[in-house]
Amino acid sequence: MDEMETSSAEDSLIARYFRPLATDPGAFDLGDDAAVLQARGADIVVTTDAIVEGVHFLPDDPPDSIARKALRVNLSDLAAKGASPAGFVLTLALRTPEDSWLAPFARGLGEDAALFGCPLLGGDTVSTPGPLMVSITAFGRVATGRMVHRSGAKPGDRVVVTGTIGDAALGLAILKGGTAATALADDAAARQMLVGRYRLPQPRSALATAVCDFAHAAMDLSDGLAGDLAKLCEASGVSAVIDAQSIPLSAAAATLRARGSVGIEAIVSGGDDYEILCAISENHFEAFAQAARAAGVTVTSIGSIIAGASVPRLLDGQGREIALRHRAYSHF
Amino acid sequence: MDEMETSSAEDSLIARYFRPLATDPGAFDLGDDAAVLQARGADIVVTTDAIVEGVHFLPDDPPDSIARKALRVNLSDLAAKGASPAGFVLTLALRTPEDSWLAPFARGLGEDAALFGCPLLGGDTVSTPGPLMVSITAFGRVATGRMVHRSGAKPGDRVVVTGTIGDAALGLAILKGGTAATALADDAAARQMLVGRYRLPQPRSALATAVCDFAHAAMDLSDGLAGDLAKLCEASGVSAVIDAQSIPLSAAAATLRARGSVGIEAIVSGGDDYEILCAISENHFEAFAQAARAAGVTVTSIGSIIAGASVPRLLDGQGREIALRHRAYSHF
Repeated sequence: MDEMETSSAEDSLIARYFRPLATDPGAFDLGDDAAVLQARGADIVVTTDAIVEGVHFLPDDPPDSIARKALRVNLSDLAAKGASPAGFVLTLALRTPEDSWLAPFARGLGEDAALFGCPLLGGDTVSTPGPLMVSITAFGRVATGRMVHRSGAKPGDRVVVTGTIGDAALGLAILKGGTAATALADDAAARQMLVGRYRLPQPRSALATAVCDFAHAAMDLSDGLAGDLAKLCEASGVSAVIDAQSIPLSAAAATLRARGSVGIEAIVSGGDDYEILCAISENHFEAFAQAARAAGVTVTSIGSIIAGASVPRLLDGQGREIALRHRAYSHF
Repeated sequence: MDEMETSSAEDSLIARYFRPLATDPGAFDLGDDAAVLQARGADIVVTTDAIVEGVHFLPDDPPDSIARKALRVNLSDLAAKGASPAGFVLTLALRTPEDSWLAPFARGLGEDAALFGCPLLGGDTVSTPGPLMVSITAFGRVATGRMVHRSGAKPGDRVVVTGTIGDAALGLAILKGGTAATALADDAAARQMLVGRYRLPQPRSALATAVCDFAHAAMDLSDGLAGDLAKLCEASGVSAVIDAQSIPLSAAAATLRARGSVGIEAIVSGGDDYEILCAISENHFEAFAQAARAAGVTVTSIGSIIAGASVPRLLDGQGREIALRHRAYSHF
């Protein structure tokens, strides 16, 4: 009796593509029904994010970048909570398991698992007649009781973001052939950079320790700066004032703004930034900025937490409020 | 500005239906981006299983039973590994979020979370144009280094199963209007019992401690007894001999067997049993059986682990081998 009769097609798939990613001893080479995650005296931080074909990624996105994005959106959450990656489990819903798709998917996933020190612990592959879906639950470790929350921001804190804002939304607009694509018709490098920011988030894992040490509150930006800041403020029972001109933009986004091709709303309401938004006390800002420099992550102070319960306000260069119609991207 | 403009539709959904299920303090009322799972000095056992509409459940299955099944298939894994439930995260892929579906789904999930002591820690709801999908990652606690593996079965061990085998596969056959439905046309109660066994697994959580204390190896039966036993034997480097006549059947399944409506293959190769298969040394069997009685779980010795690497054999009443064409259900 050959092996295919005693083990299912799913088992063969798992063995071929995913076992090499299960480098943690607690994964038991994916040969068991469960994994063991050792807490090592820390709190286990758990986060879960799924991405769906046609909703969170495009059908013709490269398989390796789909894999990386699925893992990285979760790593981004861990970093914003101040946690170090410990491992992840994967649920993969596929129409048909094709080597030409699975091989680059597993390769991309494995490279990022190694890069971020976050090994595969287990998973489930299921058949679906519908769109492809990748669901990842990721685990991190943080000193007991030290997970950084959305709540905790205090009036007087600086509002700080990592990296640049709005690039991923502009990248998606380019892929969809919007005005951003036309406006950057003469600049292939800029288009490619923005598309890359959409396809491949850069989780700020290097900043996790500094966030844990200095932030009163933090979250990662997935649904747009305006909406996510409103959530952080609501959870903290505070409000905020943001200086639109200090929001950090990439050169490509700045060009699009300068040419009038995109408004500030597209920048602050587009999703998929996967930068960290945090509230840092004035006292700690310099130490945080220094830790960020040491970690190689750009951080920018874009406004202040203030007392109150109103929705955070976005001010232009003259101190006038900029009205926003849509604050966050909703998948429904 | 009303609430719908500052928080997304997804947030409202989560708040209304799922926050009441997040009874663990580490879930932070689902108001943060991650949860904290405390290991309490134990190993964290992690398992993940997804169910897809049209593949693992039927489109017109009641929403509360879909929710229960999604959680219970994971609880079944934890029990077979000797772990006590600690919590779970949920990924829910929906076409459109409808109250008429979400309300009973969340109610069923909440009732089972309470029943099995396994609170919701977090999750993600995503939109899909395709079939509904429920992916759950569940966590359990087990004393350090004591998770029960697939490997570990030794020649001379008894092969033991909980409950009765084959009911869920017959229940699915009835829902599909197969010969089982015709053969039980006169017995609505039997049909209902079998369908119930398909829709609502009974995780043997009450047996987790006994499995941890006495089993050399264990796994839950999800892909059929024959195929799953082959996996356990392969992982343990052993073989097994099973006495077909001692495989425990429900009265309804026994009737179908007696009427010649189903063969032994349908019993041992059908999936979805969610009973525990384990290997117990002869020395410990009586103590295990006693612990099982105390836990209110029926256990039956159905054969023996033997040395060797051949596929486990199934013998009839005369000791002749019963040939099986398909050992396990594959979703591909």
